[in-house]
Amino acid sequence: MSLDLLSMANPGVDGLMPYQPGKPTEELERELGISDIVKLASNENPLGLSPRARQAIEAATAELCRYPDANGYYLKQKLAQKLNCDSDQITLGNGSNEVLEILFRTFVGIGDEVIFDAHAFIVYQLLTQSCGATAVKTAAKEWGHDLDAMLAAVTERTKLICIANPNNPTGTFLAPRQLAEFMARVPERVLVVLDEAYYEYLKADQRADSIGWLTQYPNLMVSRTFSKAYGLAGLRVGYLVASTDITDLLNRVREPFNNNSLALAAAEAVLDDADYLAEGIALNEREMARLLAYFDQRGIRYIPSVANFITIEVGAAGEIYDALLKKGVIVRPIAGYGMPSHLRVSIGLESENSRFMDALDEILA
Amino acid sequence: MSLDLLSMANPGVDGLMPYQPGKPTEELERELGISDIVKLASNENPLGLSPRARQAIEAATAELCRYPDANGYYLKQKLAQKLNCDSDQITLGNGSNEVLEILFRTFVGIGDEVIFDAHAFIVYQLLTQSCGATAVKTAAKEWGHDLDAMLAAVTERTKLICIANPNNPTGTFLAPRQLAEFMARVPERVLVVLDEAYYEYLKADQRADSIGWLTQYPNLMVSRTFSKAYGLAGLRVGYLVASTDITDLLNRVREPFNNNSLALAAAEAVLDDADYLAEGIALNEREMARLLAYFDQRGIRYIPSVANFITIEVGAAGEIYDALLKKGVIVRPIAGYGMPSHLRVSIGLESENSRFMDALDEILA
Repeated sequence: MSLDLLSMANPGVDGLMPYQPGKPTEELERELGISDIVKLASNENPLGLSPRARQAIEAATAELCRYPDANGYYLKQKLAQKLNCDSDQITLGNGSNEVLEILFRTFVGIGDEVIFDAHAFIVYQLLTQSCGATAVKTAAKEWGHDLDAMLAAVTERTKLICIANPNNPTGTFLAPRQLAEFMARVPERVLVVLDEAYYEYLKADQRADSIGWLTQYPNLMVSRTFSKAYGLAGLRVGYLVASTDITDLLNRVREPFNNNSLALAAAEAVLDDADYLAEGIALNEREMARLLAYFDQRGIRYIPSVANFITIEVGAAGEIYDALLKKGVIVRPIAGYGMPSHLRVSIGLESENSRFMDALDEILA
Repeated sequence: MSLDLLSMANPGVDGLMPYQPGKPTEELERELGISDIVKLASNENPLGLSPRARQAIEAATAELCRYPDANGYYLKQKLAQKLNCDSDQITLGNGSNEVLEILFRTFVGIGDEVIFDAHAFIVYQLLTQSCGATAVKTAAKEWGHDLDAMLAAVTERTKLICIANPNNPTGTFLAPRQLAEFMARVPERVLVVLDEAYYEYLKADQRADSIGWLTQYPNLMVSRTFSKAYGLAGLRVGYLVASTDITDLLNRVREPFNNNSLALAAAEAVLDDADYLAEGIALNEREMARLLAYFDQRGIRYIPSVANFITIEVGAAGEIYDALLKKGVIVRPIAGYGMPSHLRVSIGLESENSRFMDALDEILA
């Protein structure tokens, strides 16, 4: 290049992975000469769209020439009621990915350290780098977060600790008591974000009262999403709950109109669709049990998961991923998470999971 | 607050305007006890949604439980064809607001200077501040950008010059020849973004071949949007065209899935709706003429505009804004743009513009 763009770019941009344009499933099908691909790669809700969300989208379509409500007024009102917090404690984002980005852009800068688990959601790593900060990764304990190691890693430069609970891609989780003890020990000057993208899949006794804890811990933030159990991955709605003071700062950095009109309408509607939520969770439980029985029977090792995916240990994961792909089953290789022998498999519909098991049987035979 | 959050936040956050939650039109109607509000405040296309976009949204709704195409493959293919560039020269964003944000996050940091016009789109100011950089505002010339002043403002620290063409909120524009001369004189190490959000409203001879210039100027970038003439403000789709090298860096910083599935589908479809585009532009031309005749007749001063809005000088703009609001007509006060005597009025449907003129007549009487 005639310009030395990298030297003109902000610190951290150089270290970010160069852009790798991916192809939509349709293009992949064309190239591989297959059709009817089963997608078990992105931890989506396989049930399809909630009927209430569909109705809300239809109703909101007419007004699309108008800008969205810049503040997500109605969605925040509804979330606040449901979560028992104030609407000015909520920051909405274009997926929880964006609320995490807003959080990083607000607080994390050059010279700061951000602590997270070695196998945690990869966005923490990308955002840390993008902000020119230093990633401090702690080793996992039985594939889960080691909270003691995280506390031990705190230095004067630590700005933020990211905890994914349940964690993606391992499916592990931290019990409420463990988290409570952790919060009591974290210095108040260190921010903590609990990323609860898979919260809805936890059983009642597995769920921390994380939003309740906000009154006690001004350094705590909780992020959640509509992309998983609520089945709105295609619409990108996430949110972060925190003190009103933190929320004020985040909303200074947030772009207005970051959630589009159909996303806001659908998210509002799906909050009322308790049946859809329950059906998805029941399906997940049933099919998870079926998959585990299959793995046990075949002697395939897996990491016990509380979420809507299961991570299996298969040795030459890259080869098995390719072989599955050729049979029309997409799962997720997670070498980028430091787990080159594992594959992450989302729990799909009964028929989709059967396709996966049959394909894996043929490959391992 | 028990925590000194501002001292923990990144430089620039402190100076950003604190969050002011706005209310949706429905809430405003309830409070003011009025109904049937006419919204001439956001430079939207008043025609409503393109029928082709509506069909595309309906077709894409079923798959919303799946993540969007992270790279906007089909939309970029189509844009590249239309714009006569490569698809790897295009960065898609959640509105052109987000592509500008990605650009700033990639290149602009503490110590950098960003040059823009004193009355330019306010997002340049916000992003400059948010990145901890220094805003260098040049005085306007007859309400338009003074390119000589911008060139004279370049220092060793200048990272970026932002040029809105046409400019919002003044409606002024720079002729192709002016821009060409400017580009020839800008040092190559200084990035230039031409923000062409209102490009489609320009007549053929007013349009610079800005995307054609990219081969000549590696420091040039051009941003456009689907929010104005294409009538998709509610869906948030913008794009930036630049060299493949710049695009590579921007896409490292861009979040995947930043455009949602319905936004991608609708934008792709509306590109094929030449009738919708032409109808909106013709309506705008007709109604702009009618408004100008009205202003001339009443002796109301205005800034000649090439876009889909007109900015008028009314003295006590805040009071007139309030009076219009009480009559159910929302226009845009632009004191925040250093124009406390002006109001910006979007060109609406014939009936909407009549409502505005009638209301203004009553107020001025």
